[in-house]
This record gives sequence, structure tokens and C-alpha cells, in this order.
Amino acid sequence: MIFSKEFTSAILIIGNEILSGRTVDKNTSFIAKWLGDLGISVEEVKIIPDKEDVIISSLNELRKKYQYVFTTGGIGPTHDDITSESVAKAFGKKYEYNKEAYVILEKYYANSDFNEGRKKMARMPEGATLIYNEQGSAPAFSVENVFVLPGIPSYVELMLPQLKEVLISGKKIISVSCDAKVRESSMAVELSNIQDKYPDIDIGSYPYSKEGGFGTMLVMRSTNENKIIECKKDIEKMIHVFSAK
Amino acid sequence: MIFSKEFTSAILIIGNEILSGRTVDKNTSFIAKWLGDLGISVEEVKIIPDKEDVIISSLNELRKKYQYVFTTGGIGPTHDDITSESVAKAFGKKYEYNKEAYVILEKYYANSDFNEGRKKMARMPEGATLIYNEQGSAPAFSVENVFVLPGIPSYVELMLPQLKEVLISGKKIISVSCDAKVRESSMAVELSNIQDKYPDIDIGSYPYSKEGGFGTMLVMRSTNENKIIECKKDIEKMIHVFSAK
Repeated sequence: MIFSKEFTSAILIIGNEILSGRTVDKNTSFIAKWLGDLGISVEEVKIIPDKEDVIISSLNELRKKYQYVFTTGGIGPTHDDITSESVAKAFGKKYEYNKEAYVILEKYYANSDFNEGRKKMARMPEGATLIYNEQGSAPAFSVENVFVLPGIPSYVELMLPQLKEVLISGKKIISVSCDAKVRESSMAVELSNIQDKYPDIDIGSYPYSKEGGFGTMLVMRSTNENKIIECKKDIEKMIHVFSAK
Repeated sequence: MIFSKEFTSAILIIGNEILSGRTVDKNTSFIAKWLGDLGISVEEVKIIPDKEDVIISSLNELRKKYQYVFTTGGIGPTHDDITSESVAKAFGKKYEYNKEAYVILEKYYANSDFNEGRKKMARMPEGATLIYNEQGSAPAFSVENVFVLPGIPSYVELMLPQLKEVLISGKKIISVSCDAKVRESSMAVELSNIQDKYPDIDIGSYPYSKEGGFGTMLVMRSTNENKIIECKKDIEKMIHVFSAK
């Protein structure tokens, strides 16, 4: 990545259902785009099982390496939800009832059974800061630079905007695309020359086939809008030459 | 994961387009399901940028830790395709033209320009074994326990079956689901008791909401079919009790 090292993050996806292939992870894409708009780049994503030792070691590695870490999954009421307790252990903090979360859950389940599983969702690392869930009941939380989110994509989308004020962010990462109706292998050399001309733009080349025809989506990413405009002109010129062939 | 440690693997997804959130990774789900049928579990997935030093260090870590590693992305013709060269460096092998791949590509591009970008797709680590692509042109390849696949999902799906004879695999990992029209928080305690009764089954609990109603998909995974049948009966009994409430 060519973006400032100050504004980096990692996503830690926790869940056997992703590793088994049963569920396609959609949280990475949403979180990464949302962070990109804030000028925070995602440098690494790790998908790991619901296993305590793996969660602890992965989290301790990532939270030291990047400015922010976002985890998803494993904060529900069932036996396979072990993220909160593992996060507490990773930080060497007590795993205890968060009073505010307990009150929220108690109120939510007032007319039904506030059982052990539901109470468990109020247990968090000592000193955790709540991230509220307006739609569901159980809040998520953060500890230092680690944001512990649920696995359900609709909850993640609801909760993320709350973090906007908390994160120290950089210049928005602008992404501009050009759809070339040209095979990427035809223009590889010319494209490489353009990349050399614009070192502070990350140019990605993504081939596709649609209705039997081949094409390439060229994506420019940078925090420098003027450079992107210049670069786009060069790319459009190149595409024009190849389309005319 | 509760499966035999002999049959483990990791997936290394290489591509800025996934980290930026532009593209949702679909290869993990397909590869993991396909490996599960062969009795090979995926223990870890890592998504990294098209950056040489990151590719080399990630690959060297994973290939020592797991029986197999599958990479996707970065073997095309353009400047941002640096996977093959990085794999060569990770293994300390020469990065050179693979004669067989060169002949395949030369033939495929006989009636068009066999340019530098296209020739690049024939460059691989010394001694690489080809994985053929019947639909496209450029073959993928393997080096020792590392299988270097393209990023385009349709190509991955086409190429994987070729590896069936090559991989040493275990007992098929069976996955059976029960759809409980019950909130997972209602039955968390009872479910935990069932998990304790069946230590060699991995029971996952995945809440969902459909048309306003809440439910939970309970997924049992194991290589032991008889135990899964027993466990399923217990789970169905439990669901029945809660549904009647």
C-alpha cells in the first residue's frame, strides 16, 4: 500500500463458519470501504477459528502492528462465542460484567428469560467502552485500539458509524475506475509505464469476462485527487489507442 | 478445529482489491468447501496486499505451519501481478520461463501479439508443476506444498479438481445443519450441554433474521458420521422443546 503508515488497520475475522466455507465473509468489504473513506487503509485481514489461543496470539500480533484492529464474530450468547473472553486474556484484563451492558440487556429481556447465555453478552474485558446496537440488544465494545464487533453484517453496518469520532483518520482514499474493453494482457506494458509515471497512485488491473467479451477494470487509488485526475487522462488515452486497434 | 492435524491448510489471498473492499473474496468459500470434502481443514486465511516482502514473509510462515497452502491472485500479465516472482523468492528458487507454459501461451496467442505481459505469465519458480487452465490460457502452478492459483473465481473452480490426485487427504468432513426457529440466546445453555456431550463434533450456532423473525442455524461438523447422527437427534429434541414453548 502506498498510503501513510500512520493510518493503518487490520481486520480479524473470527469464526469457523467462514473457514469451513459455509459463509462468505461480507464484513471485510464493508469495513474496508468505510475505513478507506476515512483515510485509514486495511493492510491485512486474518480469518481464524473460534479457538482461544489463536484469537489471543493473532490479536496481540495485530494490535501492536497496526494503529487499529477490528474484529468480527464470536460475541453472542452461545458456547462457541469466545471472543470477548479471549480479548480480555489478550490484554491481561479481567473478564467481568460490564454494568452498563448488563442494564441494557436486562431491560431488553425484561419480558423473557434473562438466562445465562444472555447475561454472558454483558461480560467484557474490564474497562471496555461500549459500542451500541440500536437494532439488536447486545452492545459491542472496544479496548484501547481494538474494536470488537459482532459477526452479523447488518449489525456491523449499524455500529461502525459510531466510531467515526473516535478514530484518528487521514486523508480520504479516493478510488476511481476506468472500464477498458480491452484484455489486460494486451496493454500490460503500456499500463506498467503509466504506473511508473505515477508512483503515488496504486493502479490495479482487474480482468473480467462479461457476456463472452473480455475487459479490464483499471482502478486508481490515492489520497492525491489532482494526480488521480492526471493519471486517469493518461489511462483513457491508452484505452482509446487499444480500442481503436 | 477438532480435525486431525495431519490434514491442515491455509489460504493466502493476495490482492489490493480485496483489502480495499472493492471486491468481495469468493475464493475462500469455494476452496474451503472443496477441501472439506477431501478431509482437509482450512485453519487460517490471510488477505494481504500485492507487496513482495509481505507475500514472501506470509508464505514462508504458512507453508511451514500447514500441510498445504493455496494462494490466489497476482499471476496475471500486468505490473501489479507479482505473486509468481515473490513465490520464487520465498523458496529461494530462480524465477524463469517455464518451457511448457511458454509453449502453451505462444500457441494461444499465435494470432495476436505475444507481448511482454503475456510472456510474463510463463515465468515461474524453477521446477514448478503446472496446473492447467482449459478455459483461459495461462496455467497456474505448484511448488512443493504451495498451490499458486489465479484470482478469478471461475478459473479457480476449473483448476482445483486437478489437484485431487495430488493432495494427501483425510476423512471427509461432514457438515449437517438444523434450522431452529428459536433465538440462539434462548437455548444457549442447553446447546452448550450438547456440545459438552459430543466433544468430537464442532457445533456452530449462527443466528439469522428472516422476514422479521429470528432463528438460528445450528451446524454440526465432524468426520464421524455416526456421532453426527446421534448429536442431531439431541439437537432436534432440544429444538422441539423450545418450539413448543
